[in-house]
Amino acid sequence: MPTFVQILDFIGTFAFAISGIRLASAKRFDWFGAYVVGLATAIGGGTIRDVLLDVTPAWMTNPIYLICTALALLWVIFFGRSLIRLNNTFFIFDTVGLALFTVVGVGKSLALGYPFWVAIIMGSITGAAGGVIRDVFINEIPLIFRKEIYAMACVVGGIAYWICDTIGMHSYGCQVIGGLTVFVTRILAVKYHICLPILKGNEESENEGGGKWGTSS
Amino acid sequence: MPTFVQILDFIGTFAFAISGIRLASAKRFDWFGAYVVGLATAIGGGTIRDVLLDVTPAWMTNPIYLICTALALLWVIFFGRSLIRLNNTFFIFDTVGLALFTVVGVGKSLALGYPFWVAIIMGSITGAAGGVIRDVFINEIPLIFRKEIYAMACVVGGIAYWICDTIGMHSYGCQVIGGLTVFVTRILAVKYHICLPILKGNEESENEGGGKWGTSS
Amino acid sequence: MPTFVQILDFIGTFAFAISGIRLASAKRFDWFGAYVVGLATAIGGGTIRDVLLDVTPAWMTNPIYLICTALALLWVIFFGRSLIRLNNTFFIFDTVGLALFTVVGVGKSLALGYPFWVAIIMGSITGAAGGVIRDVFINEIPLIFRKEIYAMACVVGGIAYWICDTIGMHSYGCQVIGGLTVFVTRILAVKYHICLPILKGNEESENEGGGKWGTSS
Repeated sequence: MPTFVQILDFIGTFAFAISGIRLASAKRFDWFGAYVVGLATAIGGGTIRDVLLDVTPAWMTNPIYLICTALALLWVIFFGRSLIRLNNTFFIFDTVGLALFTVVGVGKSLALGYPFWVAIIMGSITGAAGGVIRDVFINEIPLIFRKEIYAMACVVGGIAYWICDTIGMHSYGCQVIGGLTVFVTRILAVKYHICLPILKGNEESENEGGGKWGTSS
Repeated sequence: MPTFVQILDFIGTFAFAISGIRLASAKRFDWFGAYVVGLATAIGGGTIRDVLLDVTPAWMTNPIYLICTALALLWVIFFGRSLIRLNNTFFIFDTVGLALFTVVGVGKSLALGYPFWVAIIMGSITGAAGGVIRDVFINEIPLIFRKEIYAMACVVGGIAYWICDTIGMHSYGCQVIGGLTVFVTRILAVKYHICLPILKGNEESENEGGGKWGTSS
Repeated sequence: MPTFVQILDFIGTFAFAISGIRLASAKRFDWFGAYVVGLATAIGGGTIRDVLLDVTPAWMTNPIYLICTALALLWVIFFGRSLIRLNNTFFIFDTVGLALFTVVGVGKSLALGYPFWVAIIMGSITGAAGGVIRDVFINEIPLIFRKEIYAMACVVGGIAYWICDTIGMHSYGCQVIGGLTVFVTRILAVKYHICLPILKGNEESENEGGGKWGTSS
């Protein structure tokens, strides 16, 4: 009998994997490539976090993430076209995953004794780094660097977690409020098209190839 | 006096490095860039495996991989044009490397006490992840995600290893059969143009930039 | 009261972060994306080194790198245009960072008991790998693989360090001479346009997609 958190974890993993598999399919990857991109999207953030924290990555101790990604691949193979109608559902699932993964990343880092600013970064890596790996694999500029409040929702949720902890709240309460903050921030940002400002490029650095300091010395 | 496995290891490393260096040369990298891409192709998979398994990467304990890559670079610098005639030879060498690296990855993971499904993934990472890093460095979509049975041969070989182990075969026999399975799978796949199906893209996700769930909520 | 080395570390981190943030701004990243690219440029090399050496990454024990990157982002937001006039200053700062990061990487590896050839590679990774991650994030072929003596300056400095150590010099002297060697090599290479040779591509490998060995068996 899975717990509530395990169900959320499954939903989030499934949604993250679907996101990777769909983008892979748009690039005409084969089934293997799509599976790898889906898996990297789902577990990439947690793996980087666990390597940095020097613990065994979660997916190496439990095959659920591999199975969940395989189910996501089957879903896209059989019901690919119907996914468009489900966009809003998957948006919610994806945001649930983002919220849960962030809270898990923050909690795991704190449990290992790291300070809060490390935990907030680890929460953001858990939530958002999988999408960066996905975009590197499909050879696109990572989406989260250019559009939408995505990783920033993780940061905001991590800060909420920290505030709750600072005012003496129980860790369970911190997790619920931290996760809800991620969820609500992301939903509101998408609903009201809230973005961060674009950093204006100076002309010099727009040159092709982006020579770092030129050879102007 | 090197052992038979060390000779195979040298051949595989050399072939993997050549593959990276040739693709780097097609992109007009300088000698340093070509060396780094060749090295990353040769040792990248094993390095990721060892980081995940939390052991010291093999190339940090033995300079043979650096020397082997340097020899591969010299080979391309001096005999670059003759490589085309040797394509079939290098294809065989590369497949020897793929088979050996896979078996080494599986064996190392099992020796560290991981379950078989982790070992099969680690075998595939050892064999195929170097090529992914190579393609990220030369800014191409990783070849193994789109064409050819390459990493799938590692998976098939890993499963053969597992079956041999399950029926009580000695680990030496498992390695030989696992490695031969990778080798034969790859050779047959290339000879008979066996591919995995391409995952069909749904229209929605073909949009430029690949917006994940759009802003449709 | 910060030490001289801490001041150099701050200068180097700031210059590396500026380099990442400016290239991100040329690609129209938002503030968050620019911050992440700046941070990855500044701490990416040291993080890869510390993961390979199996120690806790430096930035997880001291928030100075995050703060320094935030200051670099503010600088670009407010004084973006004036940066062009300061190109020569930033070139010097960047080279100071390269020299210091290299020496820190070499010293840390030696202190952990690794042989010199590992230490030289770790010094080069510390100095140059952040720039590779930056270029992967902005979806460009890594600059250091194609142009300029950049990582090679780290290798030369690492070898100088090794020679000083071999002739019995005190570690402090090794560090000063190693760092100065990196600094001078880089300055001279840029001033006199010294490059490594480009590796000539053979026709076969110039095909689109870069099929590894073709299907010619």
